[in-house]
Amino acid sequence: MNRFYPPTRVLMGPGPSDIHPRVLQAMSMPTIGHLDPVFVDLMEEVKSQLKKVFVTDNKLTFPVSAPGSAGMETCFVNLVEPGDKVIVCQNGVFGMRMEENVIRCGGTPIIVKDDWGRAVDVQKVEQAMANHPDASCLAFVHAETSTGALSDAKKLCQLADKNQMISIVDTVTSLAGVPVLVDEWGMDAVYSGTQKCMSCVPGLSPVTFSDKATSKIKNRKSKVQSWFLDLNLVMNYWNSDGKRSYHHTAPVNSIYALHESLCLLLEEGLEASWKRHSDMHQLLKTGLESRGIEFIVPENERLPQLNAVKIPSGVDDGKFRGELLQRYGIEIGAGLGPFAGTIWRIGLMGQSAGIKNVNTLLSAFTDLGVK
Amino acid sequence: MNRFYPPTRVLMGPGPSDIHPRVLQAMSMPTIGHLDPVFVDLMEEVKSQLKKVFVTDNKLTFPVSAPGSAGMETCFVNLVEPGDKVIVCQNGVFGMRMEENVIRCGGTPIIVKDDWGRAVDVQKVEQAMANHPDASCLAFVHAETSTGALSDAKKLCQLADKNQMISIVDTVTSLAGVPVLVDEWGMDAVYSGTQKCMSCVPGLSPVTFSDKATSKIKNRKSKVQSWFLDLNLVMNYWNSDGKRSYHHTAPVNSIYALHESLCLLLEEGLEASWKRHSDMHQLLKTGLESRGIEFIVPENERLPQLNAVKIPSGVDDGKFRGELLQRYGIEIGAGLGPFAGTIWRIGLMGQSAGIKNVNTLLSAFTDLGVK
Repeated sequence: MNRFYPPTRVLMGPGPSDIHPRVLQAMSMPTIGHLDPVFVDLMEEVKSQLKKVFVTDNKLTFPVSAPGSAGMETCFVNLVEPGDKVIVCQNGVFGMRMEENVIRCGGTPIIVKDDWGRAVDVQKVEQAMANHPDASCLAFVHAETSTGALSDAKKLCQLADKNQMISIVDTVTSLAGVPVLVDEWGMDAVYSGTQKCMSCVPGLSPVTFSDKATSKIKNRKSKVQSWFLDLNLVMNYWNSDGKRSYHHTAPVNSIYALHESLCLLLEEGLEASWKRHSDMHQLLKTGLESRGIEFIVPENERLPQLNAVKIPSGVDDGKFRGELLQRYGIEIGAGLGPFAGTIWRIGLMGQSAGIKNVNTLLSAFTDLGVK
Repeated sequence: MNRFYPPTRVLMGPGPSDIHPRVLQAMSMPTIGHLDPVFVDLMEEVKSQLKKVFVTDNKLTFPVSAPGSAGMETCFVNLVEPGDKVIVCQNGVFGMRMEENVIRCGGTPIIVKDDWGRAVDVQKVEQAMANHPDASCLAFVHAETSTGALSDAKKLCQLADKNQMISIVDTVTSLAGVPVLVDEWGMDAVYSGTQKCMSCVPGLSPVTFSDKATSKIKNRKSKVQSWFLDLNLVMNYWNSDGKRSYHHTAPVNSIYALHESLCLLLEEGLEASWKRHSDMHQLLKTGLESRGIEFIVPENERLPQLNAVKIPSGVDDGKFRGELLQRYGIEIGAGLGPFAGTIWRIGLMGQSAGIKNVNTLLSAFTDLGVK
């Protein structure tokens, strides 16, 4: 049985992103019990850090002990009851996954479709709400990882609020890369992932729920279909009133890592992190455009941390990404769904959003004939 | 924001157990992409290691990207359809959680109750099968972490097989500590946890499914209610026929850790690991009995790796465990449910099952007046 030594990589795909050595070091500290008072204190500190990152006072803010797709499912299984109508915006892969979630909860999805590569059209959502005033939730993806489009979460959440609907928002790729102002924008149920702009290891999904969402969860008519994700149980594990009750065993070392990545983020400051992502995007954009490479998302709907660009004509997708990985150790992302084979997704997330990475990538492009 | 340094602990509770430095070191290696060919190779290697540990040729063998309770839920949501009858054996906390899972899947649980602290009574199960020949599954806990009782998985699975039922078996605390022979015993759906006798970090749940179980999952009448745990999707992510399709982002660094802990286990050898757990149990038992401390489980139904013992009269539970933790850095487990305040659960799991730990604990007992 051979020990595993990962190759040196520069992670510029859609996540995971490069991890700071401090995070890796924190994760390798000895495991302690998940009910140890010292660990319980750490859980409290992580909750308070996450509140700062989500810019919220929401009491129910914690990391789900599983990846982002489980964070998504946490929102849907707790907030959608059989028979509920949910307006789901679809402009990429993750909006489609939301539809699947609604169906599996016994809800009825009302789909608002936009082209892949475009932001969610607020007017279409307004129209869907007028047509379905009985819908209980509005679900949308803030930053579509499959296309690099950024939607107007503030307007969409305000619309949901005006129509007495609960907003369910995917911020997996947006959190820490662009503003996500949970309280100011009135977002109700928000989930994210640790392996994108927070530059933590993959495997956890930070979530936050407004009082409106929490109250809906506490007053459900039916049991939540998932025992593992039932917030009525989970909130007693992550709560802080001294009566913590055992639910599952938290992934102790991953929580160490999350704590340290949140330390790094808060030391830098949220606004500085947003600015760095934006600055690095500009640098990359200049380099790509000087090579004649085009973005697929209109400039005003573009995510700085996920750059979806057309593959230059004459370049073989698989061969190019393979050489980039094997010869330069650089990972970039392939296109998904209708974009498979026609676009690349270049991530500038968290620690990956730095001058060194941008220049490393651009010079490899030049080497490989894309100049 | 202060960095977090965990205190030095000796983990002798019901899990997590002490982690070998090699595992912590492996986990702190730089993160690579979850679709990186090098990581995909590692996934294949982990699958083949897990097959050795479960002693099975089952193709569908992999670690669920979440803790043991999600492993439990994976088995139930995939194998129980609305209206299905499931015989659930209850002799502790985790049998109760199984009942909850059946109900949340829309199934009907048929409960076979045994006293807490006793093994599952095979005759009662036989009777329940005779009374409910239409039941589709038999679910039981091999090693009850809440009581330290070991049930006869071989007989129970053979009974399920004889009656054309699928067996769902919790081996969270048994795997690597006592024999778990998946193929030889005809076990169908088996889940475990990494943080017990495998001495890996908490957060993953190894599972394995027989062809009979896999075929049932592929031929379901209804959709699996969980998208995240739907094996029809997950098996395309963990499969090995070259057409791996994206499902979620695997917890890359936790997989590094699991790989290394499986290397350690397989280097020692499964049988040697079972023997070590048994030997350490004998050593602890001698020390405890010489102090007049009694076990709650009859000797022939006792788990070596989880020692449930009566708290000596005159000893204050909370105060004693608090001193053990604060002064000696030793964690032992409290009683759960009807046993809260009356028993301790002393774990000897994985790396924690060593002479040093046993003697450290016994001498601390002496120091604290239990001699």
